[in-house]
Amino acid sequence: MNLSGVKTVVIGGGTGSFTLLKTLKNYTHDITALVNMTDDGGSTGILRDELGVLPPGDVRQCLVALSNAPYLRDVLSYRFEDGTFKGHAFGNLLMAALEKVSGSFTNGVSIASEILNITGKVEPVLINNVKLCMKTADGKTYKGQHTIEQSNFKQTRPELWLEPNPEVNQSALSAVEQADYIIVAPGNLYASLAPALLVPEVGHAIKASKAKKVFVCNLVTKPGQTDGFAVNDFVSEIERFIGGKCIDTVLYNNKKPAKRLLDKYAFQGEFGVEIDRGVIKDSHYTAVGASLIGEVHTSSKSDLMARTLIRHDSEKLARQLAKIYYAA
Amino acid sequence: MNLSGVKTVVIGGGTGSFTLLKTLKNYTHDITALVNMTDDGGSTGILRDELGVLPPGDVRQCLVALSNAPYLRDVLSYRFEDGTFKGHAFGNLLMAALEKVSGSFTNGVSIASEILNITGKVEPVLINNVKLCMKTADGKTYKGQHTIEQSNFKQTRPELWLEPNPEVNQSALSAVEQADYIIVAPGNLYASLAPALLVPEVGHAIKASKAKKVFVCNLVTKPGQTDGFAVNDFVSEIERFIGGKCIDTVLYNNKKPAKRLLDKYAFQGEFGVEIDRGVIKDSHYTAVGASLIGEVHTSSKSDLMARTLIRHDSEKLARQLAKIYYAA
Repeated sequence: MNLSGVKTVVIGGGTGSFTLLKTLKNYTHDITALVNMTDDGGSTGILRDELGVLPPGDVRQCLVALSNAPYLRDVLSYRFEDGTFKGHAFGNLLMAALEKVSGSFTNGVSIASEILNITGKVEPVLINNVKLCMKTADGKTYKGQHTIEQSNFKQTRPELWLEPNPEVNQSALSAVEQADYIIVAPGNLYASLAPALLVPEVGHAIKASKAKKVFVCNLVTKPGQTDGFAVNDFVSEIERFIGGKCIDTVLYNNKKPAKRLLDKYAFQGEFGVEIDRGVIKDSHYTAVGASLIGEVHTSSKSDLMARTLIRHDSEKLARQLAKIYYAA
Repeated sequence: MNLSGVKTVVIGGGTGSFTLLKTLKNYTHDITALVNMTDDGGSTGILRDELGVLPPGDVRQCLVALSNAPYLRDVLSYRFEDGTFKGHAFGNLLMAALEKVSGSFTNGVSIASEILNITGKVEPVLINNVKLCMKTADGKTYKGQHTIEQSNFKQTRPELWLEPNPEVNQSALSAVEQADYIIVAPGNLYASLAPALLVPEVGHAIKASKAKKVFVCNLVTKPGQTDGFAVNDFVSEIERFIGGKCIDTVLYNNKKPAKRLLDKYAFQGEFGVEIDRGVIKDSHYTAVGASLIGEVHTSSKSDLMARTLIRHDSEKLARQLAKIYYAA
């Protein structure tokens, strides 16, 4: 079963989008990755601060996922290990240089897309430099994606917005308007999905669209932010960002990870996201459970000990998403 | 008149090679740029120090000169203007990342050559990390290309060598062995041409070769190093580095630059290189004089005032070099 000819849009940012796009691009060539543009941590944050460029990190990950140039993929993901450049992904520097030389971030993305010979397109949702902002129930305000990602607000469903007013990327908007299939990728709910979905034009277009709309639910909760969240809680937050009920299907993992892994995650306050059948029964969307996980072993040189992670399996995700598209 | 099918090797380093290659690549596709590997100044020097990579700067310039991908050329030459990366050419970072990911500098150069869609080849003369060293008549020793470039030894024809022993790049050597036409590019005599020609295998191969051998003479003298040098002095130094008389033809400029330009250069101690007909008459090589200069106006943002420079004209050089190849 493939999605040949199905105009597909994947909305998100970092690792979740990467995993989803990597295989889904083989099911349909008409695929557009919409990328949130508020990342301000690590290498990306330094480049934004020092060079005044738009955030390259998440765009780079999506480019790499869609690329058909194996060697260049490795180069783009390469991080310098020493000296002045330590920790910077080479691809981030490429995006920064392309933005400077071509005069705009979106031009830079087009050129990088050619060099990397990608399937489909990568579209930043915005064309201006904005910050993700948040106000929690206790009245505290947080500014910056990285700060928000690390904050603890005890699942009190904060208010989120972008500052200054976001200027939508018209090509990103067109992709949503013309889509047959809109997929919200898994990812950090408040720091990664919200900033893509909060752009008003994007939210309106998703709601107005007749496309099939699926959310791929996160695998584990985030301590201090989504503790105790069930699948339906994630969906209701996604719809709050979009600005209305519109998700047709939520795809969630129903395969329990190995106990030793769960124990390791539990120790860090992270727990598998469960389904609350009572709530789902009365909801406006369908919940599809499937085994979606694969074991990922990191062997990054920067890790003293290789870690095993609970992660989505790219192939399993693509297979289920193709099935869901054709389901009634 | 073109050089179609003529196996051509251009030996040198930075700007001189760049200017020569830029147009000559349109005369013959069978062109190999041999690049000296001792640069240790500026962006290149920092990358060598911090990352332990081979010097990317001169290789980058040759790649850009031979590239047929206009946009990428600009990106490779782009220098970051702010922050941590200030002054680094993006292409240097690309070469460093490619070396790290591919496991060797020469592999990195091959990959960059593909990405940049170059005509011909770029071959570093060496595959190991060496320093250019110099001992002057007064017994002083200098180490490092950048140091040597800036030193003042009053045209006393210093002794030069590489440390540790250079390991020749076999592909560079093959190119020389198979060449029909060997051209030594203009460039800094001691700091840029010497380190390419001093590699013993390269010198032997040049001497043994039946190719036509031309040296394109520098336009101006370098204060403290080649003051008072005439065309024949440059040739005799080039042959000293190679290790024997072997140049067939020297191509020199016989068009006087504008007086205001000469005055400006004279103020900095730089003078046009003249021909000494008496010496040349009895030499083993032919001297071909022609108008070779073009006015180059720099408009780099880093220059407070745009400068006009005495520089070789790429088109004129290529035309004369094609003529010389077919001359008796």
